[in-house]
Amino acid sequence: MNTVELIRKKRNKENLSKEEILFLINNYTKNKIPDYQFSAFLMTVYFNGMSKEETASLTEAMLYSGKVLNLNSIPGIKIDKHSTGGVGDKTSLIIAPIVSATGVKVPMISGRGLGHSGGTLDKLEAIPGFRTNLTLSEYKNVLKKVGAVLIGQTKEIAPADKLIYALRDVTATVESIPLITGSIMSKKLAEGIDGLVLDVKTGNGAFMQKTEDAIALADSLIQTAKAFDKKVIGFVTDMNQPLGNYIGNWLEVYESIQVLRDGKKNDLTELSLILAGAMIYLGKKSKSLDEGIEEAIRILKSGKAFDKFVEIVKAQNGKTDFILHPEKYPKSKFKEVIKSTSAGYLSEVNTYELGMAAIDLGAGRKTKDDKIDPKAGVIFNYKVGDTISKGVVLAELFSDSKSGIDNAKKRIANSIKISRSKPQKLKLIKTIIN
Amino acid sequence: MNTVELIRKKRNKENLSKEEILFLINNYTKNKIPDYQFSAFLMTVYFNGMSKEETASLTEAMLYSGKVLNLNSIPGIKIDKHSTGGVGDKTSLIIAPIVSATGVKVPMISGRGLGHSGGTLDKLEAIPGFRTNLTLSEYKNVLKKVGAVLIGQTKEIAPADKLIYALRDVTATVESIPLITGSIMSKKLAEGIDGLVLDVKTGNGAFMQKTEDAIALADSLIQTAKAFDKKVIGFVTDMNQPLGNYIGNWLEVYESIQVLRDGKKNDLTELSLILAGAMIYLGKKSKSLDEGIEEAIRILKSGKAFDKFVEIVKAQNGKTDFILHPEKYPKSKFKEVIKSTSAGYLSEVNTYELGMAAIDLGAGRKTKDDKIDPKAGVIFNYKVGDTISKGVVLAELFSDSKSGIDNAKKRIANSIKISRSKPQKLKLIKTIIN
Repeated sequence: MNTVELIRKKRNKENLSKEEILFLINNYTKNKIPDYQFSAFLMTVYFNGMSKEETASLTEAMLYSGKVLNLNSIPGIKIDKHSTGGVGDKTSLIIAPIVSATGVKVPMISGRGLGHSGGTLDKLEAIPGFRTNLTLSEYKNVLKKVGAVLIGQTKEIAPADKLIYALRDVTATVESIPLITGSIMSKKLAEGIDGLVLDVKTGNGAFMQKTEDAIALADSLIQTAKAFDKKVIGFVTDMNQPLGNYIGNWLEVYESIQVLRDGKKNDLTELSLILAGAMIYLGKKSKSLDEGIEEAIRILKSGKAFDKFVEIVKAQNGKTDFILHPEKYPKSKFKEVIKSTSAGYLSEVNTYELGMAAIDLGAGRKTKDDKIDPKAGVIFNYKVGDTISKGVVLAELFSDSKSGIDNAKKRIANSIKISRSKPQKLKLIKTIIN
Repeated sequence: MNTVELIRKKRNKENLSKEEILFLINNYTKNKIPDYQFSAFLMTVYFNGMSKEETASLTEAMLYSGKVLNLNSIPGIKIDKHSTGGVGDKTSLIIAPIVSATGVKVPMISGRGLGHSGGTLDKLEAIPGFRTNLTLSEYKNVLKKVGAVLIGQTKEIAPADKLIYALRDVTATVESIPLITGSIMSKKLAEGIDGLVLDVKTGNGAFMQKTEDAIALADSLIQTAKAFDKKVIGFVTDMNQPLGNYIGNWLEVYESIQVLRDGKKNDLTELSLILAGAMIYLGKKSKSLDEGIEEAIRILKSGKAFDKFVEIVKAQNGKTDFILHPEKYPKSKFKEVIKSTSAGYLSEVNTYELGMAAIDLGAGRKTKDDKIDPKAGVIFNYKVGDTISKGVVLAELFSDSKSGIDNAKKRIANSIKISRSKPQKLKLIKTIIN
C-alpha cells in the first residue's frame, strides 16, 4: 500500500477498506507516514466524509493503537457518559456519584478545557489534592472500591488520537464528524465500558452549532458504539446558554455541591438526572429510561449521591474539607458585577463569548502552557426567557487579574440581549436517539 | 494573519485576499509554515478551487518568490510556447528555430520528463554536449545572439514552485487547475516574455484526460496570462496517440531533424506549424494567425529553420555533427519489433501505456535519481484510422536493457487496438481560445 494512492482514493470519494485505514493510522502512529501526508488525508476526510464502516475501522485502528482496558475482574455493568463540551457543563461531577450509588460502575476518562469549553479534569483539579493522573492499576482499584473513577487520558490510551488531534488542531480539520467520532470513541472504548450515554451539545456555545450537525454526530457516535457491541443512548441537548449558573472550575464544583447536597434545581439538575437515568437504565438498574430517571431522583434526594461524591474525592486524594465546607475555599482578588441597564426579558446569550470571557478571567487556557486559576469564573444568574428588572445583577465575575476582569466584563456585556417581548424558553432536550 | 485561519477560510469556500495568499506562499517558501499545514491548504484548493483573482495572486506570489528576468535590453518581442505534456511531443525543438528565424525572440525555460510524459530538457540533452544549465547571463547572451534559447528552471526562478510541486506530488494535490496554473505561469512569467502560446493536451496520453478539464485549464492559464498583461493564444490539442512517430529522447531529436531538414509531414509537423504561426502572430511578424502559419511554412521550406536549429545547438555547446549526420549517433544494444497479428484499422492507442513503455526501455525516470538512456525509445509507425495489414511492423523498440524491452513489448502490444470497421481519424486541434 502507498500513502499517496490512499489519499487520492479518499480524495476521489472512494471508500477505503479496513486494511487501508489500518495502514494509514498504524504507520502514522509509528511515524512512518509524515505529518504532511496525514494532514492532506485528514482534509480529504473533512471534504468527503467516511461511511459507517470506514468510521468504525478508523475508530478500531485508533483504539488498538494503545491499551484497551479489561474491567471484567470488577463486578457490575460499566457505563460512562460523554459530552461533546460546552459552557458550564459539569454534569459528570453530579452523574458519577448518582449512578455509582445505584451499583452501576462508572469508569470515566475525561478531557481538559478546549477552546471556549471547560473540561472535567480541570474542574476536578480545582479540588486541592485531587489526582486525575491515576495509573491504570489505581484506576481499576478506585473503580472497584468506590464504584466510580474520573481520570485523564493516559499515555497508554489511544496514542493515535493524541497525535491526530494535535495535527487536526493546526490544519483546520477538527470539524469532521468521522474524525470526531474516531477521537471520542477510541478513548471511550479503551475504558473497558459496556455502555455509553452521549450528550451531544448544539447551539451557540457548542462545537456543533446547528442541530442537524449535532444529530449527524450523535448518529455517527451511536452507529460506531453499536459496531463495537456497546449499549448506547444519545441525547442532543441545548447549549444556547450556560448549563446551570456557574462557569469556572471551582465555581462548577461548588454548583455541583449545591445540586448534590442542597437540592438546587435548575437546567443542570434536570439534565444530570436525565443522563444519570439513562446510565442507570443501560446499567440494568431500571427497566426503562423513565424509571432510571426516577431512581436518579431518589438517590439524589436521599443524600447518597453527595456521600458518594465525597467518597470519590477522598479516594482520588482530594481534600474533602473543601467539599464539606466550600465556603473555606480561597477567594479571587477581584470581583465585578454586570447589572442590567434595561428592563425586559433575557432573550439571547452568546454562550461562546461567555466561555471566552471565563478564559479571560483565568478559568481556561489561551495557549497550551497557560496555568488555570481554579477560583476564576462567572456566575450567570438568569436563563433565557427570565424577566429582567433594570439594575439587577446579571453576572458576577471573579478573577485575580484586573485586565482579565475588564476584558471579560466588556465581552459579557456585549453577549447578553434583553428584549421587550417575551422570548420562548429554550428546550433542553432536542432529541433522544438510540 | 494565522495559517490555520486561512486554511479554514479556503476550506469554508471563502475567497482569500491577495495579502492572504502572499502570506501563505512567502512564509511557506521561507520555511515558516510547516509542510503539514501547507499540504492541508493545498487540499482545500483541490476541493474548493480558486477564483480568477486568487489564481492570479497565487501566480504572482510564486513568481516573485524568485527572480523575474528583464529582457528589455534585447530587441524584439519575446514569445514562448508551453505544452502541458504528452507522449512524443517534441514541438519545442521545431518551433524555436522556425519562430526565431522570423525575428521573434524565443526564450524557453523547459522541464524534464514527468510521469509518462517526456521533457524538452531531456530531449535536448540527448545531443552530446548540449548545455541546458546556462546561467541567466548566458541565457540572455544566447537569446540576443541567436534569437532563441532553451534552458531548464534555475534556482533563481520561482523557487516557491519547486517546493510546492514536490509537496503536491506526495499529497495527491497535483490535479488542481489553480495549482497547475500557478506552477506553469510563475515559471513562464519569470522568463521575461511578452506573450505565450499554450498547447493544452487532452486525451489518454495527457494529464487532463477529459476535454472539458483541458478547456478549463486553458481558460485558467489564459486568464492568468492576461492578468499579467501578456498576449496569449491557447490551443486544446489531441493526445490520444503519440505526436509524430518517435518517442524517446534522441529519437525525438531525430524526428525533429526529419521535419526541419527533410520535409517530413505528419501530425507533429502540422501542430508545430500552427503553434509557430501563433507565436509569429503574437510576435507581430504577421497580421493574423493564418498568415503566421503561412510564414512558418515558408521558413520551414526555405531551410532557414534547420539552419537556426544548428545555430541554437552550437550556441548551447551541442555537437552539431550529430545534427548534420544523425546516422552517426550510437545505437541501442537491443532492437525488437511488434507486428500486427490481424488486419484492419488502428482504432485505439493507450498513449499513457506507450509513454510508460518508453520509460521501461530507459527513455525516462522511474525514480528521481534514475539515469536516462538517450538512445532508448519507440518508433510507432501508424496513426489512428490507418489501414493495417497483417504482419506489418507497428512499432520498433530500442533499448540497452533486455528486461526493459520485454516489458515494453508486452505493454505496447496490449495498448494497441485493431478494429475491423474503419474508425474516425482523430481531430488534432480541439479548440482555440484567446
